[in-house]
Amino acid sequence: MSIEKLQQYREQMRTELDKVVDFWQKYSHDTQYGGFFTCIGKDGKIYDELKYVWLQGRQVWMYCRLYRTMERFNKPEILEAAKSGGAFLRRFARIPNSGSPWKCAFCLTRDGKALKVQRTIFSECFYVMAMDELARVTGDQDMQAEAAQMMDQLVHWVRVDPSGLGRPQLSGDTPVCSMAVPMMLLCLVQQLTEGRSGEEVDKYREVGGWCVKQILQHLQRGGTAILESVSSEGKELPGCQGRLQNPGHALEAGWFLLQYGLENGDQELQRTAVDKFMEVPFLTGWDKEHGGLLYFLDVDGYCPTQLEWSMKLWWPHCEALIAYLMAYSHTKEPALLERFSQVYDYTFSHFSDAENGEWFGYLTQQGKVTLDFKGGPFKGFFHVPRCLYMCEKILDSILNKQES
Amino acid sequence: MSIEKLQQYREQMRTELDKVVDFWQKYSHDTQYGGFFTCIGKDGKIYDELKYVWLQGRQVWMYCRLYRTMERFNKPEILEAAKSGGAFLRRFARIPNSGSPWKCAFCLTRDGKALKVQRTIFSECFYVMAMDELARVTGDQDMQAEAAQMMDQLVHWVRVDPSGLGRPQLSGDTPVCSMAVPMMLLCLVQQLTEGRSGEEVDKYREVGGWCVKQILQHLQRGGTAILESVSSEGKELPGCQGRLQNPGHALEAGWFLLQYGLENGDQELQRTAVDKFMEVPFLTGWDKEHGGLLYFLDVDGYCPTQLEWSMKLWWPHCEALIAYLMAYSHTKEPALLERFSQVYDYTFSHFSDAENGEWFGYLTQQGKVTLDFKGGPFKGFFHVPRCLYMCEKILDSILNKQES
Repeated sequence: MSIEKLQQYREQMRTELDKVVDFWQKYSHDTQYGGFFTCIGKDGKIYDELKYVWLQGRQVWMYCRLYRTMERFNKPEILEAAKSGGAFLRRFARIPNSGSPWKCAFCLTRDGKALKVQRTIFSECFYVMAMDELARVTGDQDMQAEAAQMMDQLVHWVRVDPSGLGRPQLSGDTPVCSMAVPMMLLCLVQQLTEGRSGEEVDKYREVGGWCVKQILQHLQRGGTAILESVSSEGKELPGCQGRLQNPGHALEAGWFLLQYGLENGDQELQRTAVDKFMEVPFLTGWDKEHGGLLYFLDVDGYCPTQLEWSMKLWWPHCEALIAYLMAYSHTKEPALLERFSQVYDYTFSHFSDAENGEWFGYLTQQGKVTLDFKGGPFKGFFHVPRCLYMCEKILDSILNKQES
Repeated sequence: MSIEKLQQYREQMRTELDKVVDFWQKYSHDTQYGGFFTCIGKDGKIYDELKYVWLQGRQVWMYCRLYRTMERFNKPEILEAAKSGGAFLRRFARIPNSGSPWKCAFCLTRDGKALKVQRTIFSECFYVMAMDELARVTGDQDMQAEAAQMMDQLVHWVRVDPSGLGRPQLSGDTPVCSMAVPMMLLCLVQQLTEGRSGEEVDKYREVGGWCVKQILQHLQRGGTAILESVSSEGKELPGCQGRLQNPGHALEAGWFLLQYGLENGDQELQRTAVDKFMEVPFLTGWDKEHGGLLYFLDVDGYCPTQLEWSMKLWWPHCEALIAYLMAYSHTKEPALLERFSQVYDYTFSHFSDAENGEWFGYLTQQGKVTLDFKGGPFKGFFHVPRCLYMCEKILDSILNKQES
């Protein structure tokens, strides 16, 4: 592929990122109560005022990351928006919990009252991401300490005792390893260790190594399948749960592992990340008839029970773009750039909205927009801008090397 | 419409009901552990062994109802299957719960270990339905007493104190009235009072009156909309939750109300049931382009956030068939028979599987089968046979009057 083509990609990523940032700056800020609206219609109209903690944390993180690492976003209005979101989170996200003082709500009213709490770790994870990145741009030591404390709590829930999450203990509910958990913790380890050293960092590195081992357990059936859930011994689980594949999630794990393998000089891990976590989900998950990545699949070919299994969602395509471009950048294998290009063509022609900006999130299997909002309870300012941001950075690095 | 046409409908309902009962008798019985498999593929293959308590309870109820009230199903093998399901439920469904001794699990392993518990009332409701109907066919007084005790617990949770359900109390989580709750309790009141009298029955009748009032609160906007959730003062709630419409659910409420109105000689309620709870969901929910009832709608025309909003599910169509036929049978308004006929044509040409029996459950908006199993975590032996059973009964009564 020509340098011109790569330059075109970079230009497209850059332009699109600017449009996406504009969209959320224009429509999502709640200037009255702080924090962000995330239920935003196709043309920017707020259709619900609830504030989802995952999405609050992610938007704070994304603003800070852009502010800190991309010169054109190093602007006071970006920092101010991130601080407003951070203040809202610190004030309202944590809720009284008998088991654990650090439990976060899942959903808040516009003015910050807790509405729902999940018995999982993810609200807390995005709280950590937000606080640590915000501490990096503001220098606020309290925030960083808060992120560290919350991280300790998370590791305790995951590796020692989950009872503080509030799930009742049931005799048939044997422990299940969900790929989301070590992926999320590995992401936090990357966040908390970047550019730092010392005892704290060594502690996190041990957690990182544990996460990688856990993620690799999801590679099953002689390396031909990535399964979302396995037993705590790393074996297949019975039934639908055990057979479930989520191609977008596997691809996201792929670039997490590749990044970790590169940072730690682990070539075997780099190879596994590319050959397994990026190749397998494409072979099983790409819809040969209509294009795009299917959302869920059953490894034995049964129909998944998730009603949305055949839909095309925006985020698996975001993760695929990052994965293939990162893999190409390090291996220089043309086939990986071809993959990137194939996903790129589908993604930009189906999800991106030239008329009003931002991306649609939910298409039918045939590729028609079926939920037309730009933000919702699970779609905020995160997968799209992170994808565009990372792809722009990777393309910069490829082109800088080629141009120099 | 001619008598011949009505006879054809009855013949079709009867034939289809026989096929559906055959399907579940053939594939769903777990002869080893008792109870029923419900995750059953298009050709009868079990693809998951988990046992969902809603569906166990519903299957027991349906078998007993068929056994008790339709001569051709008054067969020992139907009774034996119902008893096996009942024994499984009694032995395993109830789980230790700090707040309430009568909490049921949502999902059990094949051998009856509790796997999940919901913080709602529905598992318990289907437990009551199963136990009461089973007591009617077996004469088992203990079972009937168990149903009554569980009902008392349900009424307590709904009308006095929900804390035994295990939901944490959160400051933003103001009480919400979901139409499902009074609908379900009204259904139980019908179940527990049928053909009985006495003090117990008077107590249930009071509950029934309360349920009807609660359901009517969901008729909003000057009678032009049925909203799934309203405030405890019967007002509209803000945001997506407040604007949500579920046409199939409104239609089901419609025939519950009509039935109650007929039993109690309440003509105004009969009119409201037909003119509002049956007419409004058709006007808003029928897909004029592709046919069939949409699953969810936003009353202000925003896109619902449920990914499946535009899909066509089997059960709203089942409920619509019962509603329009029951309404026609009592009003003799030809327009209602036309409605029935329109829903009938869509339903039998899209959901029914002539090849392997039973119905598909999940279609795209365009009417293509997208999840091809016959049973799943939320689809068991209930809506399809109840619809066919009730339609056959109603057609019998219409035709008997016309023929005599």
